[in-house]
Amino acid sequence: MTISKESQGRLREVAARVAADVEEAMRSDIKRALRRCDPLLTEVLEYALFGGGKRIRPLLTVLSSSICGRRDEELYLLSAALEYLHVATLIHDDVIDHARTRRGRESVRNKYGMAVAILAGDWLHARSMHLIGQITGPEGLSAFCRATGAMVDGEYLQLRHAGNIEMKEEDYFAIIGRKTASLISSTCVLGAMFAGGTQEQQQSLGRYGEKVGVAFQVVDDLLDYLGDQQQTGKKVGNDFIEGKITLPLIVALKQADAKEHGELTALLSGDRSGPNACEHLRVLLDRLGGFRFARQHAEFLVGQAVDSLQIFVPDGDSESYELLVAIAGYILAREH
Amino acid sequence: MTISKESQGRLREVAARVAADVEEAMRSDIKRALRRCDPLLTEVLEYALFGGGKRIRPLLTVLSSSICGRRDEELYLLSAALEYLHVATLIHDDVIDHARTRRGRESVRNKYGMAVAILAGDWLHARSMHLIGQITGPEGLSAFCRATGAMVDGEYLQLRHAGNIEMKEEDYFAIIGRKTASLISSTCVLGAMFAGGTQEQQQSLGRYGEKVGVAFQVVDDLLDYLGDQQQTGKKVGNDFIEGKITLPLIVALKQADAKEHGELTALLSGDRSGPNACEHLRVLLDRLGGFRFARQHAEFLVGQAVDSLQIFVPDGDSESYELLVAIAGYILAREH
Repeated sequence: MTISKESQGRLREVAARVAADVEEAMRSDIKRALRRCDPLLTEVLEYALFGGGKRIRPLLTVLSSSICGRRDEELYLLSAALEYLHVATLIHDDVIDHARTRRGRESVRNKYGMAVAILAGDWLHARSMHLIGQITGPEGLSAFCRATGAMVDGEYLQLRHAGNIEMKEEDYFAIIGRKTASLISSTCVLGAMFAGGTQEQQQSLGRYGEKVGVAFQVVDDLLDYLGDQQQTGKKVGNDFIEGKITLPLIVALKQADAKEHGELTALLSGDRSGPNACEHLRVLLDRLGGFRFARQHAEFLVGQAVDSLQIFVPDGDSESYELLVAIAGYILAREH
Repeated sequence: MTISKESQGRLREVAARVAADVEEAMRSDIKRALRRCDPLLTEVLEYALFGGGKRIRPLLTVLSSSICGRRDEELYLLSAALEYLHVATLIHDDVIDHARTRRGRESVRNKYGMAVAILAGDWLHARSMHLIGQITGPEGLSAFCRATGAMVDGEYLQLRHAGNIEMKEEDYFAIIGRKTASLISSTCVLGAMFAGGTQEQQQSLGRYGEKVGVAFQVVDDLLDYLGDQQQTGKKVGNDFIEGKITLPLIVALKQADAKEHGELTALLSGDRSGPNACEHLRVLLDRLGGFRFARQHAEFLVGQAVDSLQIFVPDGDSESYELLVAIAGYILAREH
């Protein structure tokens, strides 16, 4: 699937506008919520919330609501709430992973210490739930908390499989489905719910979000091997160095003959941060079709995502439809 | 204020029954929520939730609802949700403080590691919000999230004042008001809200909870110096060793003459874990009236707590009224 230059340009333009509106909503919400609070809390939250970020989740909420016919001020506050939770999980993830950087800057944990980071994540989590409960009521909150629960469950599954070279494709998809896709999916569902969309519309957007979310992670894991460090901001082969088993490797292990299997396991159990280890692995994964399969699978998922939007043709808002399709296409085209 | 032996016995009996009912509610909720989840998540949550604990917060919710006239099955689930949040904060606190033990057992952080602990806290946080949103609607959720935000703000204030011997009484009360009392207060408000209590009833119980919460923490900080290690499960003078400035010390520093002030600051800046340091400090704090003042202030707060229940005489449920009074009294009598 390819998207036209025109579509790409239009997506960039809308994405920038939505990001600006959501950031404005975050700024005024934070200001309101933090009146009479400790100034350090304000400083940390501003640092964490306004350090870049693609704002893909808020964009999905806005478009999911728009395609069902509603787009007003409050929608940006709802989108802000979803971004809060996303940022909260990044802050806690960086504590868990002892990560020094995030988006090319110091991580909150590194800059302010663990205690401040854990607490800032908790604050954002609570504020997020508060706003979602206010805006979408118990039904939306419930959908959202299920997604949060699933994220934690996905993290546990990932811990369980850390460094496990016998991990199966279905384990990989169970992990990323819970860790990444559940929140993206509920982001779309909440947008539809906010607009008073029908059950069918909510489900359709939920499925779109899920497929897009899984595809996003598959591509992310591909870029980890094939991306340009300048663009991704992450070291090439970072997952491999950390012993994280992702789709290209799982596929390669399955395709490998005895000799190749031996080579792969030797690389994994050896000094993974050695100068040639990653390059050697890349050659093997490429030869065994790991990258090709992951790429094809992401394309397949993106196709499914677009298919699940069919019910909006021709009844939904056509501009939102085209932008949602363009986002799905962007996932395949992205380089960072 | 003293409470009769009969009242004490009755409180113990009701507290045990409520604790059992709330634990049953937690067990069946966890089972329902964790269907198809990673078994480690179940294990960790069971370890964290069922390791003792006084269940004071659930008891306050149950009584606050009962005094306004409602007591049914769902109330125990609401109480369970409030206990979830309390346990979530304990788990995160233990990560922040690198605490090895909690209630005489290994802390979750120590037993399962930091990653598992942070995530388990996040899960409980989300589940708590989910249930509260379901049971009390956006209004209750909003009251509750304000309390959670206040807790984080209180923690930041505490970090700001760590080891600051110039800390004022008002700083101390601002910290414990936010860190401890806000959640206890909202626990009572939510019980009243659940029962459909009037604004006046909600406010009255909220004030009761706030006063009880502050008194509870003042006594906790007193027991840190004067408690029996066997009973509290904590090392005597633990706050002092960690450089935490609490009310007895603040009062003593204010009362001290130049020589005594010098002695106090020397103790604080010296080897606080030395064999005689804590005992020496205890003598000084006692002489300077630090303990006496803290004790009297706790009594004063407990009196205010009881006063704020006046609107329930003679209209509220008289058994719940007496038990709420007995809890206030228990705070002064507790030895651990």
